[in-house]
Amino acid sequence: MNTFGKNITLTTFGESHGPAMGGVLDGFPPCFKIDFEELVRFVARRAPGTNALVSQRREPDEPEFLSGISPDGLTLGTPIGFIVRNRDMRSGDYKNYTGVFRPNHADATYYKKYGIHDFRGGGRASARETVNWVVAGGLCIQLLRSKGVEIAARFIETGSVAEAKADLTSIGGIVECVVTGLPVGIGDPIFDKLHARLAQGMMTINAAKGFEYGEGCHSAYMRGDEPQRSGGALGGISDGTDINFRVYFKPTPTQMKPVEGEDINGEKVIIQPKGRHDPCVAMRAVPVVEAMAALVIADLWGDKR
Amino acid sequence: MNTFGKNITLTTFGESHGPAMGGVLDGFPPCFKIDFEELVRFVARRAPGTNALVSQRREPDEPEFLSGISPDGLTLGTPIGFIVRNRDMRSGDYKNYTGVFRPNHADATYYKKYGIHDFRGGGRASARETVNWVVAGGLCIQLLRSKGVEIAARFIETGSVAEAKADLTSIGGIVECVVTGLPVGIGDPIFDKLHARLAQGMMTINAAKGFEYGEGCHSAYMRGDEPQRSGGALGGISDGTDINFRVYFKPTPTQMKPVEGEDINGEKVIIQPKGRHDPCVAMRAVPVVEAMAALVIADLWGDKR
Amino acid sequence: MNTFGKNITLTTFGESHGPAMGGVLDGFPPCFKIDFEELVRFVARRAPGTNALVSQRREPDEPEFLSGISPDGLTLGTPIGFIVRNRDMRSGDYKNYTGVFRPNHADATYYKKYGIHDFRGGGRASARETVNWVVAGGLCIQLLRSKGVEIAARFIETGSVAEAKADLTSIGGIVECVVTGLPVGIGDPIFDKLHARLAQGMMTINAAKGFEYGEGCHSAYMRGDEPQRSGGALGGISDGTDINFRVYFKPTPTQMKPVEGEDINGEKVIIQPKGRHDPCVAMRAVPVVEAMAALVIADLWGDKR
Amino acid sequence: MNTFGKNITLTTFGESHGPAMGGVLDGFPPCFKIDFEELVRFVARRAPGTNALVSQRREPDEPEFLSGISPDGLTLGTPIGFIVRNRDMRSGDYKNYTGVFRPNHADATYYKKYGIHDFRGGGRASARETVNWVVAGGLCIQLLRSKGVEIAARFIETGSVAEAKADLTSIGGIVECVVTGLPVGIGDPIFDKLHARLAQGMMTINAAKGFEYGEGCHSAYMRGDEPQRSGGALGGISDGTDINFRVYFKPTPTQMKPVEGEDINGEKVIIQPKGRHDPCVAMRAVPVVEAMAALVIADLWGDKR
Repeated sequence: MNTFGKNITLTTFGESHGPAMGGVLDGFPPCFKIDFEELVRFVARRAPGTNALVSQRREPDEPEFLSGISPDGLTLGTPIGFIVRNRDMRSGDYKNYTGVFRPNHADATYYKKYGIHDFRGGGRASARETVNWVVAGGLCIQLLRSKGVEIAARFIETGSVAEAKADLTSIGGIVECVVTGLPVGIGDPIFDKLHARLAQGMMTINAAKGFEYGEGCHSAYMRGDEPQRSGGALGGISDGTDINFRVYFKPTPTQMKPVEGEDINGEKVIIQPKGRHDPCVAMRAVPVVEAMAALVIADLWGDKR
Repeated sequence: MNTFGKNITLTTFGESHGPAMGGVLDGFPPCFKIDFEELVRFVARRAPGTNALVSQRREPDEPEFLSGISPDGLTLGTPIGFIVRNRDMRSGDYKNYTGVFRPNHADATYYKKYGIHDFRGGGRASARETVNWVVAGGLCIQLLRSKGVEIAARFIETGSVAEAKADLTSIGGIVECVVTGLPVGIGDPIFDKLHARLAQGMMTINAAKGFEYGEGCHSAYMRGDEPQRSGGALGGISDGTDINFRVYFKPTPTQMKPVEGEDINGEKVIIQPKGRHDPCVAMRAVPVVEAMAALVIADLWGDKR
Repeated sequence: MNTFGKNITLTTFGESHGPAMGGVLDGFPPCFKIDFEELVRFVARRAPGTNALVSQRREPDEPEFLSGISPDGLTLGTPIGFIVRNRDMRSGDYKNYTGVFRPNHADATYYKKYGIHDFRGGGRASARETVNWVVAGGLCIQLLRSKGVEIAARFIETGSVAEAKADLTSIGGIVECVVTGLPVGIGDPIFDKLHARLAQGMMTINAAKGFEYGEGCHSAYMRGDEPQRSGGALGGISDGTDINFRVYFKPTPTQMKPVEGEDINGEKVIIQPKGRHDPCVAMRAVPVVEAMAALVIADLWGDKR
Repeated sequence: MNTFGKNITLTTFGESHGPAMGGVLDGFPPCFKIDFEELVRFVARRAPGTNALVSQRREPDEPEFLSGISPDGLTLGTPIGFIVRNRDMRSGDYKNYTGVFRPNHADATYYKKYGIHDFRGGGRASARETVNWVVAGGLCIQLLRSKGVEIAARFIETGSVAEAKADLTSIGGIVECVVTGLPVGIGDPIFDKLHARLAQGMMTINAAKGFEYGEGCHSAYMRGDEPQRSGGALGGISDGTDINFRVYFKPTPTQMKPVEGEDINGEKVIIQPKGRHDPCVAMRAVPVVEAMAALVIADLWGDKR
């Protein structure tokens, strides 16, 4: 299903080339003043074209809020409904896309699961969905900031993005995130451990292949008498120190020449390479990681006693 | 809260030194024949004392099934309630444990969150909870096997466990898990991606610090024109190939001499070292990883169309 | 929270005088052909002005579907997002409405619960919310019809609506609903009994004060050796006979002359009577009852084995 | 599924003639002192044999608490697991009961839904399940009382129970419940309206056929200029006045002579009348109504801001 969280929930919808993306953020507390200008700046950080190294596509995303906020910007305690229109909706092209599966792409698993697929640009599997998370997460970031919590992610370059771009290929990368100011007591003991929910949230981001917190994977090579960093949580509950975790992203598979794919009848077809690509999706994921962290933490905060 | 899953749900309870652990497995399909002998063998794999290298404590866990299964071993489609009695319940010792926090231990975060804590052996934060997961997961393993799905985890030694034991310290480790026979279509596109739910499940296991699937963290260092292993899922949905993932465990923090902790009034107290310890918790986690993988996959299977 | 159901879920948003109402219908099966013309006709049945006896306000509701349906009208298995614009949005009037509580109206309980309230026409407490249910329920009615299930509600007049209208007052009423063609097995044994979920759904409709099914309240006066109608469910599970139930609606409280209310500071204010009113809300509730019944039944259908 | 509630949840299990009934009450606040003697007295009110007019079967129910409560009776904030052993478990009789459906009984719908049924006394459809609700609800009653909320239900006789008993038949009845001391703000605006959740809860009680609150079904015959009682909620949110509602119960169908039923092969069989029966199930339902009301209100209280 398309709902995330238990106390502050986000329900999303939208196919990448349909009319709009959107979501419902429910459980957000009332009487909180939204800073719309800051939100628009935050959403813009996700868009391509903001950096010479990433894809140049122009895609100015402006969320339209339909409910839950009074005319003077105060939350009402009612569900916050919003939509973000898709600008490059190509309904005319629809027929051309029907029924061709790119190799190693989610198109095929979707089609086999549902028996139907919106082939206009990846449908619901597209990274376009993350615009919903950034809008809703951006509101949660403002809420958490008002409580003294700051969330900051940064891109760690694992190779030369410029060099990969020059070769018309792509490269993976790492996003590290630090959360400061979190009080003791956020997270639940068993299945909703703070880092377990963060792991789930981060692994929903397209192209994420690994998650670690605190000492991380390296701790498997440590001994019990060496000092270990907790990563901000003990027994799944925040311990008052900084939360830190890392998400590992694979590179977008790239193709410089036509490749073989298959159509919905299982017959082989030749697929032409796409005209544009992201040399490093991890770079664009930085605000998505921050937004998702905010959604997880704001949601778990609701359980705090 | 203490419920995991959406279609096949597990709700658990129990403190490590209270009368019993237990759970309710709901949504399990009817008319399935349970092999109790196999289940008991599977649960026994979790217990300490089964290997010369791990803790020698004797703790034969026998689940008692209270509902959901007919006298001749067929599931009824009703919730399966079970309990596992705690053998080394020490109610007499209770006063002695009151109010002392071990350093770097979940006791303190629990106490600060709830304002009360069962200090008899870690309460709900204890790894004792995993016996519930192994009982319920063991049933799901049998169910999945009947559909052709096999789950096999193995311990990858990262250093010498024997050497750490000799030094009265501990060492971390890795558990790798492979799932074979899974059909296309398990997992949901957005927040319930197969690997996102696996990540959540694995990170709930005590001492887990990292999770990766397919090419894993290493993929951050790859280029888009290199071949990548999918790890069994595309867009969050199983693609018909083997699922593989790894969980990284830290070593149990060990202490050879008395250390400073604090009591519930914040005053410093000297805590004596415990008499026994696990030289490598990752070794005991192998059946827990299998059980948790089965719980996740059986749960997501319910969404398959 | 604002989500209804477990298998096919509806999440709604919208204040009555905000920009739009809307919802996300998640879990709807893929590859189902939507008849939009029929849906628009069904939604129109809810609108006032369709009958000489009810309120004359013109309010043509046209749902805009934003996701989950392909350009040729087939459901995709992805969440169906929709909005319905509010035509008589009066943001200019906003200040005038601020802070006055009508007597016996939900404005006051909302304000005390949330500390803020959208006073433009009732906010989220308004019956305007039911447009979301009718849009989503209308889709479920089409889905159920394709399985041979028909839902038909009718208004039972308990007094003369015309006579009440002439007196500028209102009258209560009863809506009876019959569901035919439902197979055996819909509903869950304990908390999700078919009639328990219907009761919850019907009692969410504004002005509903009573619910009964089968023999209903009258059965309290019967003896065990008299024949009883099951009402379509035994032990909470449909038994293959027709489902029938009744919902009892109170009249809208009416006021012909100025009354005393209070403002947010607790001071008494004089409130002028509203210019229009519904002489019988039960009449408008007929399609709402059908829509809600469809949402409940389609949701429980997902549990059918 | 077998879980009720969202903030304070009850998950139950147990077949009437299996080893035990039981449940997990999760989300109950920590540091609350349980009065076990009062709880046992409350649970005993549900048992038959406490009144000359109802069934004489002896069935002393003593809940065994397995977790969530410290040795000195304080709740820990962890899930409260409990079981109630079934005293008249008849595993030897099992074969005799296999495969015969009583007419107008849930046995048949269960069997058709699940393809299997525990024929030992009704399985999960038995009113035995209500012992779980009374144990968990009894804890919630104590919690609510500590906040000044009192819940009191009473039986309203609709005919002569003694006379029905003399005729070896049964009679229906009404249970009225009043909740005093509830503050403003309990209940959620849309799908979790206080009275909608009460309706769902009450209609899960075996033999309940109707629910009304405040002015109730009678309000359908009222005019808008007559004074109406709110029943304690406006717009689904408690308004600070007393909550009052009524539940209408049908009589247990009774049979004085052998009747025709059918077996699992659809063949006709003669079923002998049972040796004992309840002349009025509504009388036994009084503490069940109180318990269920407490579960609903305690659960919704968790949403109060």
